[in-house]
Amino acid sequence: MTLLPDVDRILLGPGPSLTSPRVMRAMASPTVSHLDPLMLRLLDDVRARLARVFRAVDGSFAFAVSGTGTSGMETAVSNLVRDGSRAAVVVSGYFGDRLAQMCERYGAAVSRVDVEWGRACDPDALRRHLNANGADVVAMVHAETSTGVCNPVREMAAVARDHGALTIVDAVTSLGGVPLDVGAWGIDACYSCTQKCLGGPSGLAPIVFGPRALEQRVKGRSFYFDLSLLEDYWLRRKYHHTMSSALVCALYESLAIVEEEGLDARWARHERNHRMLVASLAELGLTLLPAEADRLWTLNAVRVPDGVDEPTARKHLLDEFNIEIGAGLGPLAGKIWRVGLMGAGSAPRLVLLLRGAFESALAKQGRHVHA
Amino acid sequence: MTLLPDVDRILLGPGPSLTSPRVMRAMASPTVSHLDPLMLRLLDDVRARLARVFRAVDGSFAFAVSGTGTSGMETAVSNLVRDGSRAAVVVSGYFGDRLAQMCERYGAAVSRVDVEWGRACDPDALRRHLNANGADVVAMVHAETSTGVCNPVREMAAVARDHGALTIVDAVTSLGGVPLDVGAWGIDACYSCTQKCLGGPSGLAPIVFGPRALEQRVKGRSFYFDLSLLEDYWLRRKYHHTMSSALVCALYESLAIVEEEGLDARWARHERNHRMLVASLAELGLTLLPAEADRLWTLNAVRVPDGVDEPTARKHLLDEFNIEIGAGLGPLAGKIWRVGLMGAGSAPRLVLLLRGAFESALAKQGRHVHA
Repeated sequence: MTLLPDVDRILLGPGPSLTSPRVMRAMASPTVSHLDPLMLRLLDDVRARLARVFRAVDGSFAFAVSGTGTSGMETAVSNLVRDGSRAAVVVSGYFGDRLAQMCERYGAAVSRVDVEWGRACDPDALRRHLNANGADVVAMVHAETSTGVCNPVREMAAVARDHGALTIVDAVTSLGGVPLDVGAWGIDACYSCTQKCLGGPSGLAPIVFGPRALEQRVKGRSFYFDLSLLEDYWLRRKYHHTMSSALVCALYESLAIVEEEGLDARWARHERNHRMLVASLAELGLTLLPAEADRLWTLNAVRVPDGVDEPTARKHLLDEFNIEIGAGLGPLAGKIWRVGLMGAGSAPRLVLLLRGAFESALAKQGRHVHA
Repeated sequence: MTLLPDVDRILLGPGPSLTSPRVMRAMASPTVSHLDPLMLRLLDDVRARLARVFRAVDGSFAFAVSGTGTSGMETAVSNLVRDGSRAAVVVSGYFGDRLAQMCERYGAAVSRVDVEWGRACDPDALRRHLNANGADVVAMVHAETSTGVCNPVREMAAVARDHGALTIVDAVTSLGGVPLDVGAWGIDACYSCTQKCLGGPSGLAPIVFGPRALEQRVKGRSFYFDLSLLEDYWLRRKYHHTMSSALVCALYESLAIVEEEGLDARWARHERNHRMLVASLAELGLTLLPAEADRLWTLNAVRVPDGVDEPTARKHLLDEFNIEIGAGLGPLAGKIWRVGLMGAGSAPRLVLLLRGAFESALAKQGRHVHA
């Protein structure tokens, strides 16, 4: 008996999101090796597409690390932070905390800008922090997957730049789903993943280093994540590792879909379906954790009403409707559900489905809605 | 126009090898998330299968790193080598050299046991080296992909163990293709890849840590490769990264195929087809670089005859017959072709095809065979 999954999960959690049939077919393309001329042509195209999707300035190096989003984080940190670097890290959730840990591991003197979970960072607070502490690098999460909050990265990056610091931005849950402009916002390094708003399978981490970051890179410990060795492969075709043909083909197709839709239209779609979800949930008496102005369009942190058991409701969605949503992390465990509308998963039919599923889960726990 | 590969390359280079249709179909299974009960069941099964394929002892931890074979190397090194560790590294080719670089990056005082490229390491030489230099860790490559040599790891690991050192073994081109017994040989950490003798797509690195290695682990810099965090995920279901469902499904199916054939039968098949290739090439006047006793069954280093242009012949195979073989690396560039018969690619029909293709390539350069 095979253990391969035989059910089509409706993936509406914090990721992976739904993979479109086009991307699945692309992934099953014939295997080509990491130095095959057909692969090199693909890699050049993927680089150009990523630079456009990140909206990077000329002279940037956009590519994909052969690992998940966390490997993107480590690639950014390990190439820009060295022993003794002063790193100011904005911690407004689980992934900000992970960024801080990563900077500490790579030897930085880390100062944390702590923000209450569920709130966005105030750029003025960051400015005061930098005035008091200084920083060589400022690291921040754009879309905090653990809280559903969108940090004002445009303003925060400007503050960091005023202080002469390099900026590292985590765009794991934002790239392709909410407005992000690495070039115009002056971001020096930005990474993401493939399995959320880009709509591919997980396994690669899109990343971009801008001109300042390329210039100020440090020699880190990691061989696998070494920016210069990765440049040797992507730009100079020198063997470094056996990049997965299947994952590159899938990423290529995901990016083609993103560009066919157009970034602006894609952002607008994510916003529209997010607003539809918020309105639908309100009809059930469900509210979101972040204030309206701070909300992500891609990941919705839905408050668990008093008296409702979080895991029971989540299990009801999975068992009865084959819908996956996420649990809260850390201090938010048991207090929120995390509902992702990302990539192909940001669609009106899925909002309708979610409304019905939540209604059923609440009714099961004695919470009948009288609309 | 799509850039997705539209030709079925016959992959007979150093890897990736041919992916079987069963594995391709498995990879296209419906996506499940990294914490889905269906995924956790798969991961438990993959762990058990990997432990059997590595022939690990009870109390070992076998799993797969979310990256290519080089990420397996970095996971082994970064969790066992710390600043000041004495690491003796056997360097008999490109990948031994990479192991030495990796140990240096993680702070070890590295002593190299240099072996001429194309020859196997003499265990007595290793013993003398350890007597003279001592070592906390001894690192070695089993199947040196750059030279086609199989190092006598059973004897080398015994020598290392006599000296009380931990052993790290690179089995990237051996696991599933040539005899390897991590448990019986007393190997402490061993890693491989998915796209060679296991016959899957690249993107995961099977790895095993034995009981001594688990006990003597160090806290490394890397978060992504941190053994304890990876244990938290694989054993205690604590989120660490978004493991790729597609790649796990592919690895599951690859391992199922390996176990259906049986390891002993699989090794015997690789030996048989290797011998058939050597005999076929001899008919064309082509010989192998390593001495007969040192040859891998999975990767054949074929000498380029005097007067034959290496890249021209390789390009002929690709352009005329859609066959990929590999070039020589480092000091062997231009001097050898690297022909892999691995996984599904170790088959008599492919040996016939290679014989014909080499005959054509040599004839093209004025080397007609009169058998």
